Amino acid sequence: MACTPGVARVCMYINEDPTRAFNLTIKRNTVTVISDGTAVLALGDIGPEAAMPVMEGKAVLFKEFGGVFAFPLCLDTKGVDEIVGTVIRLAPTFGGINLEDIAASRCFEIEEQLCERLDIPVFHNDQHGTAVVTLAGLINAAKVVGKEISDLKVATVGAGTAGVAVAQILLERGVEDVIVCDRRGIIHKGREGLNPVKEALAPTTNREGRSSTLADAMAGADVFVGVSAFDTVTVADIDRMADDPLVFAVANPEPEISTELLAQSKARVVATGRSDHPNQINNVLCFPGIFRGALDVRASEINGEMKIAAAEAIADQVPDHLLNEEHIVPSVFNPTVAESVAKAVRAAARSTGVTRRAGGESEGLTAV
Amino acid sequence: MACTPGVARVCMYINEDPTRAFNLTIKRNTVTVISDGTAVLALGDIGPEAAMPVMEGKAVLFKEFGGVFAFPLCLDTKGVDEIVGTVIRLAPTFGGINLEDIAASRCFEIEEQLCERLDIPVFHNDQHGTAVVTLAGLINAAKVVGKEISDLKVATVGAGTAGVAVAQILLERGVEDVIVCDRRGIIHKGREGLNPVKEALAPTTNREGRSSTLADAMAGADVFVGVSAFDTVTVADIDRMADDPLVFAVANPEPEISTELLAQSKARVVATGRSDHPNQINNVLCFPGIFRGALDVRASEINGEMKIAAAEAIADQVPDHLLNEEHIVPSVFNPTVAESVAKAVRAAARSTGVTRRAGGESEGLTAV
Repeated sequence: MACTPGVARVCMYINEDPTRAFNLTIKRNTVTVISDGTAVLALGDIGPEAAMPVMEGKAVLFKEFGGVFAFPLCLDTKGVDEIVGTVIRLAPTFGGINLEDIAASRCFEIEEQLCERLDIPVFHNDQHGTAVVTLAGLINAAKVVGKEISDLKVATVGAGTAGVAVAQILLERGVEDVIVCDRRGIIHKGREGLNPVKEALAPTTNREGRSSTLADAMAGADVFVGVSAFDTVTVADIDRMADDPLVFAVANPEPEISTELLAQSKARVVATGRSDHPNQINNVLCFPGIFRGALDVRASEINGEMKIAAAEAIADQVPDHLLNEEHIVPSVFNPTVAESVAKAVRAAARSTGVTRRAGGESEGLTAV
Repeated sequence: MACTPGVARVCMYINEDPTRAFNLTIKRNTVTVISDGTAVLALGDIGPEAAMPVMEGKAVLFKEFGGVFAFPLCLDTKGVDEIVGTVIRLAPTFGGINLEDIAASRCFEIEEQLCERLDIPVFHNDQHGTAVVTLAGLINAAKVVGKEISDLKVATVGAGTAGVAVAQILLERGVEDVIVCDRRGIIHKGREGLNPVKEALAPTTNREGRSSTLADAMAGADVFVGVSAFDTVTVADIDRMADDPLVFAVANPEPEISTELLAQSKARVVATGRSDHPNQINNVLCFPGIFRGALDVRASEINGEMKIAAAEAIADQVPDHLLNEEHIVPSVFNPTVAESVAKAVRAAARSTGVTRRAGGESEGLTAV
């Protein structure tokens, strides 16, 4: 062990074909949970040292639920180029990159550049983890009220990290009518001062071209999704929604409208980010299984189809006979969710041709 | 576990004073074994993926012998600035940085810049690990032949990664007469084309100002240390050394002169880098204990005193009644070496004022 002439043969075998690292090194089952500590929980920009406990916690969840070995790294920089450069240099070690708690709008640039330049999955959990679980909840909430997903009229508030990803995944899943609001109201084509991410949202959302406020956007909507951390919604806003409104007030730790007020409104299904209320939208339902599946087939990316497959798998974990207003997502402690998500993600990766390995069933859960 | 409001308090407590990360995060007992894959074993520049198995092996040794959690990282860059920048950005996560298998002369610049800019220990194992264990062996070899360390006349060949560090530690330990040779012969003041590292060695070595060949440097020397990986030494060279010559032919995997030829020479004590001969100079005797000790007292650096203390502790692990020509260093499998080294390193760190914690005995071995 301390004298390892044999290791040279392994090294040279990988040197001939570096993709063999997927078989012969920790790359096979190791991701990094990497952050710059700028957007931690509700705490904001607290620096890399202080962000570490959160990344360590995520790493534990990766292992516990997905059998994925995750190593937490907190970076002493906030620069987009520095973060991108650092992650690219680290990539040979890892089978996947889970970005965490990086503030908008830098997070969009960082993820985009990394996805373009790396051939391993890059996933910003605060964006896509939240989006996947929100979609899962919405799929089941729509079932509860007997509406078709594609027919839903959705108003969202928050066009930051999670908000943009929520809007995108809803559109990809076939929701046709999505209106996204930010602090200044409805995002619409031609609004001045839109950042590139909002600029990209404008033509694909808000098909009626409204230009007023969140309250107006909510009037007549079937669904409200709040991922804003700043706006407030009133009982009157909810009561002006369509019949059987689905209210996802996911801002954490304080939802856009309190559950006490929601109880006085006509909201039919309520989901929040909180663990002390039913229907918690928590991305732990998503990321361990997504990476488990992606690693199993050596996916080169986590694409839209894989994310939607994950959302559907999460939704499917609530069987019809248990589905009701207070049970639209499985418990975060449900140990079968991750493997179901992984299975769906493997299949979606195969059908979209982003795998580098004829995958069987999950090997990670037993092999680590 | 999946819902962790309590973690926010820990985060904010660290935010007030980032050094609390040493208590409250994996920084306490975690180092990285980090490489660019440019100088692996005898394989050379094989790239980051192919270097990974070696770093993984080192990580296992850190844990096994030192109780130190070590995470292997191989970087997809060879640039000095890129490597330095990357390691600095990674530093908040780690309690120490173990550089590994980075080629000369970049390794000198990289280590120097990192030592200057970081407040955690940075240790290039190929330099200092080899130097520490060579000194340990020399301390005991000198005892075997009844010579004083400070009186030894030493000729070395190799002014690369390990060679420079060997010369430096011998000088720091009080050896007054050291001659360093490279491919072009003896390094001396005024020789043209010296790189900065050799330039710095010239005035402190070669006190007689010789300017000839390795063979001349060896004539009359008490000690030969070969860390060259290129030069060859003959039986005649050995036989022209002083009485009872100590021959450390440490180049790996092929020593500067074969052990078969050495057996025909007048060499009294022979050490090599090989595990199939007695007296293996292997840095695994050093690095787990050095980092164990440094982490225990939260040392800000691994200074010369700590390295010499480590060497003496390794030498002390061979009790006088077992000391002989074929037993100058403890076995690499001896499980008590690392804690003895750690103890000596803690004491040296305290006496040189580079600790940030009133250290007791090792806690790492029990706490991980």
